[in-house]
Amino acid sequence: MPLTNEARGVFPIAPTPFSPSGEIDWASVDRLFDFYREIGADGLTVLGIMGEAPKLEAEESVALVKRCIARVGNLPVIVGVSAPGFAAMRAMARSVMDLGAAGVMIAPPSSLRTDDQIVTYYAQAVEAIGTDIPFVIQDYPLTLSVVMTPGVIRRIVMDNPSCVMLKHEDWPGLEKISTLRRFQQDGSMRPIAILCGNGGLFLDFEVERGADGANTGYAFPEMLIDVVRLQARGERDAAHDIFDAHLPLLRYEQQPGVGLAVRKYVMMRRGILASDAQRKPAGRLSEAAVAEIDYLLKRLATRDPRAAGLV
Amino acid sequence: MPLTNEARGVFPIAPTPFSPSGEIDWASVDRLFDFYREIGADGLTVLGIMGEAPKLEAEESVALVKRCIARVGNLPVIVGVSAPGFAAMRAMARSVMDLGAAGVMIAPPSSLRTDDQIVTYYAQAVEAIGTDIPFVIQDYPLTLSVVMTPGVIRRIVMDNPSCVMLKHEDWPGLEKISTLRRFQQDGSMRPIAILCGNGGLFLDFEVERGADGANTGYAFPEMLIDVVRLQARGERDAAHDIFDAHLPLLRYEQQPGVGLAVRKYVMMRRGILASDAQRKPAGRLSEAAVAEIDYLLKRLATRDPRAAGLV
Amino acid sequence: MPLTNEARGVFPIAPTPFSPSGEIDWASVDRLFDFYREIGADGLTVLGIMGEAPKLEAEESVALVKRCIARVGNLPVIVGVSAPGFAAMRAMARSVMDLGAAGVMIAPPSSLRTDDQIVTYYAQAVEAIGTDIPFVIQDYPLTLSVVMTPGVIRRIVMDNPSCVMLKHEDWPGLEKISTLRRFQQDGSMRPIAILCGNGGLFLDFEVERGADGANTGYAFPEMLIDVVRLQARGERDAAHDIFDAHLPLLRYEQQPGVGLAVRKYVMMRRGILASDAQRKPAGRLSEAAVAEIDYLLKRLATRDPRAAGLV
Amino acid sequence: MPLTNEARGVFPIAPTPFSPSGEIDWASVDRLFDFYREIGADGLTVLGIMGEAPKLEAEESVALVKRCIARVGNLPVIVGVSAPGFAAMRAMARSVMDLGAAGVMIAPPSSLRTDDQIVTYYAQAVEAIGTDIPFVIQDYPLTLSVVMTPGVIRRIVMDNPSCVMLKHEDWPGLEKISTLRRFQQDGSMRPIAILCGNGGLFLDFEVERGADGANTGYAFPEMLIDVVRLQARGERDAAHDIFDAHLPLLRYEQQPGVGLAVRKYVMMRRGILASDAQRKPAGRLSEAAVAEIDYLLKRLATRDPRAAGLV
Repeated sequence: MPLTNEARGVFPIAPTPFSPSGEIDWASVDRLFDFYREIGADGLTVLGIMGEAPKLEAEESVALVKRCIARVGNLPVIVGVSAPGFAAMRAMARSVMDLGAAGVMIAPPSSLRTDDQIVTYYAQAVEAIGTDIPFVIQDYPLTLSVVMTPGVIRRIVMDNPSCVMLKHEDWPGLEKISTLRRFQQDGSMRPIAILCGNGGLFLDFEVERGADGANTGYAFPEMLIDVVRLQARGERDAAHDIFDAHLPLLRYEQQPGVGLAVRKYVMMRRGILASDAQRKPAGRLSEAAVAEIDYLLKRLATRDPRAAGLV
Repeated sequence: MPLTNEARGVFPIAPTPFSPSGEIDWASVDRLFDFYREIGADGLTVLGIMGEAPKLEAEESVALVKRCIARVGNLPVIVGVSAPGFAAMRAMARSVMDLGAAGVMIAPPSSLRTDDQIVTYYAQAVEAIGTDIPFVIQDYPLTLSVVMTPGVIRRIVMDNPSCVMLKHEDWPGLEKISTLRRFQQDGSMRPIAILCGNGGLFLDFEVERGADGANTGYAFPEMLIDVVRLQARGERDAAHDIFDAHLPLLRYEQQPGVGLAVRKYVMMRRGILASDAQRKPAGRLSEAAVAEIDYLLKRLATRDPRAAGLV
Repeated sequence: MPLTNEARGVFPIAPTPFSPSGEIDWASVDRLFDFYREIGADGLTVLGIMGEAPKLEAEESVALVKRCIARVGNLPVIVGVSAPGFAAMRAMARSVMDLGAAGVMIAPPSSLRTDDQIVTYYAQAVEAIGTDIPFVIQDYPLTLSVVMTPGVIRRIVMDNPSCVMLKHEDWPGLEKISTLRRFQQDGSMRPIAILCGNGGLFLDFEVERGADGANTGYAFPEMLIDVVRLQARGERDAAHDIFDAHLPLLRYEQQPGVGLAVRKYVMMRRGILASDAQRKPAGRLSEAAVAEIDYLLKRLATRDPRAAGLV
Repeated sequence: MPLTNEARGVFPIAPTPFSPSGEIDWASVDRLFDFYREIGADGLTVLGIMGEAPKLEAEESVALVKRCIARVGNLPVIVGVSAPGFAAMRAMARSVMDLGAAGVMIAPPSSLRTDDQIVTYYAQAVEAIGTDIPFVIQDYPLTLSVVMTPGVIRRIVMDNPSCVMLKHEDWPGLEKISTLRRFQQDGSMRPIAILCGNGGLFLDFEVERGADGANTGYAFPEMLIDVVRLQARGERDAAHDIFDAHLPLLRYEQQPGVGLAVRKYVMMRRGILASDAQRKPAGRLSEAAVAEIDYLLKRLATRDPRAAGLV
């Protein structure tokens, strides 16, 4: 089933499990995808930036997508297809859709500067992959160095009917969500799904501003699901309580460069991944960092039982 | 008394209070500097990035420094003198030292890229202001786009005896502190003071890694002082407890572009500033943002009485 | 007389002459301004990027402007007032206009990215300096990292009646000139003067595309004047002939970082400047570079007598 | 035969010929490679930035390399293998070496900033592709935003015996060549080949500074060969004469973004390419631009008969 603008909830960004020797660790892959399904994820994104996508060979990428789709049953799977050129993007997009992906995610190349350059890029990307593939805009200025105003996002949405979702990770970004929802209300933009990234650092308020959920990869995605569901039920304080309990660790995990190492380490501690190995270039945890994470986990365990017994 | 590498504790980055019409609000200035002294700040930094330094005319800058030094008694005052050219930097540095400043802070211009360019820049800056003025390196890649390795900082420290402090706000930055302290231990770098910025987002661990304190501007600088003092006394859990209580608000305040607006708003709520006005270009708070901050303050009040009764 | 959109011809960007010890060399200053008047310059720009503006103290800048205006008689003088903050920009702009400047030039800060950010910046700059001061947009992406589409320039022009000129130094930029002139023809933009920078590297075609002249600082500004006048008289081939004769040297002078050193060296050889000194940070010429410039001058002398006898 | 540091002369950067419908135009490919061989090129580089490498699918890239190697006989062929990840780089490098390539060229990703990051990147790249593949450093700050000091290049050369060549396109870059040659003379760096890029804009002096030739793609590569050969024979003035004759066109072709369109258009006019089509995103020539190029070609024809009769 193709992705639509009705997508809601939490789509974790899946890391790619490797063995210490650098091979894809398929047992961990299966365990990871089972885990996401079991905790109630609403979908999944693979081959995102945090999935170490550029470190995979093309055949590995395809194999990973295949395994994911087979494993998660009817959950929609979004595949990152950002590439330095449209030929590779097209090839990847067509082949993952054939495998059953629900849609693709496209990040802009960091050379883009003006509003028109960004709009043109997405028009050309859609022309390349075809207008029949639902796609997600990745709006992540901190890492991608491309700044999209709400007006630019609206232009992309209105120019391209196959644009169904925004992965929102601008920073600061709360006003951007409000502005985009205002565009929908005043009729100048058709509705899209907005799922938030940025490691979830503002998810507590993002859903209050109108976001439909999260599309990020914190090592306790259950908490992201809690926040979205509690807010949906109007239990604001409870949503903030569970969010705040995780914030010290979540903030630690959100450090650029080293964040994925933190995430994989915690998921290894949780028994989901057999190893926290990354392919090179890899962020690495010092002994001091490991001790800090362990300390944060112990503190978290006093407020969330799911963190108990890990260290 | 000139700044030395023995500096310790919390040196808040002072905002510059303005009236809604854009004039410097001297009554708030006095209240602000009194406040810092009363809460036990160990020093102060004025005319930093968050002090809206570039929005002041030269005479205003000098007047502000004068007032600050007169008001805070024997607390050391650091003055930001970053400028697009060495002539203005020199003029400012000489004149604030004449007024009684303890030292100056210098940020690198964003055009610098290579290690040698950065080292040369600081050598030329020291040549411009004179070797007799103690100075602080501001290492803030997120905003300044200049990336200094620990090795580059060591070169600046060893080349320039007047370098006495690092304002550390790299992100992620914990390993950098450990590495710099290791340089001191292996004798390859003479000791310097390391005070941390970045809104305090990692202060809980930074002091554990060897930082001497904070040099940042959170709206509750008392908490920064608490963390530094508790850690110094070995009360690690208590330090993290008070830090974690503030983290939801601190994280909100650390948003680029809008962070100063949050800080000034909270300091206005606290009765320290008469207005949260900024000079243009100014980040502004929407109604939704104000409501979010008020909500965070209310939640904070349940864990820190100093936040009680503000909203 | 204030600058208007009727400005035409060549407005050289004046370097600031220094003595080897770093003082402003007033005798050279006088000689330089006399030189520009005598060769038939249509105006002048001082305190531009190539005028080492950020290396001057505020009083020096004012003194230079004063001297310039006194010296060049009725030629319009444009003054660069770009500054990290609006307070300094306003102070500088008001004071140079009081001294008799014809207008000011404003470059955008390198942090601007989106179309709206750029438009807002100019609106705020105009609000700061006042709507009565004619200003020039400096559009120089290579150095300033800010990319303005023709549409953005049009918005600035239409929003701000005091915008009278574009210093065009986009690269590549020929189509931009054509597009802006098309905007004027279709009535969507009011007429502005377009003078070209970028060291003159494309001046031969820029005037053919509709530019009104040059606003740059090549060491033989006579050639820029020749090109503009010959093209105005329809002598296309002759314009290209003189341009091509200078191109090997002009290209050498247009190297970023070292270009000003080349320019000052040649102007010293020509007897206009007593020294080619720059204030720090300074690009410097190696012996090999000096020999190369001398070689280029010798070759140039065979095609343009004004270069004869210099080496 | 593998590439060594004895490489000398001109290795043109080959464009990739496309038909107007976007397919690789194999007839033009053959004609192009024959052309390079016939004019006396010393080698070739394919799949460089100007070869539109990222716009090709992996199989197309391999096919192009195969055809090139088969066609140019014993000329060494360098293949660009820059990629967003090491897996793809390794796959490409191994497969083109199997096909008979002489070596590979690796550009740094634009995210690198510090000296250590750059050195580490090349160490990891070599680890990925294997130490047995001769490689070329591409040093192109204007486009890649990575600034390598001579010291950094020396570190890469000394750390990696398989580094045999520098594609030098820093700007300004003449002093860099002199410094690197000085490193060789003082024994701190082993000898490498230095071939220059940047469209050839400074080739006249680069070879005088010690460069071994050119590795760039001007539409009249014969001129590049002339310059290198004349300088090798000590005919300095003749070398500059032919260079200067081409400089107006060469400068026009060197415009970022539109340069490849100029190059392909001229090569089409010369009968080498059947079409000047590019794959998207493509720079395009306006009617005015075409007329300007034609004018430059006509003027060039008066000084170089190889340009005669083209328009």
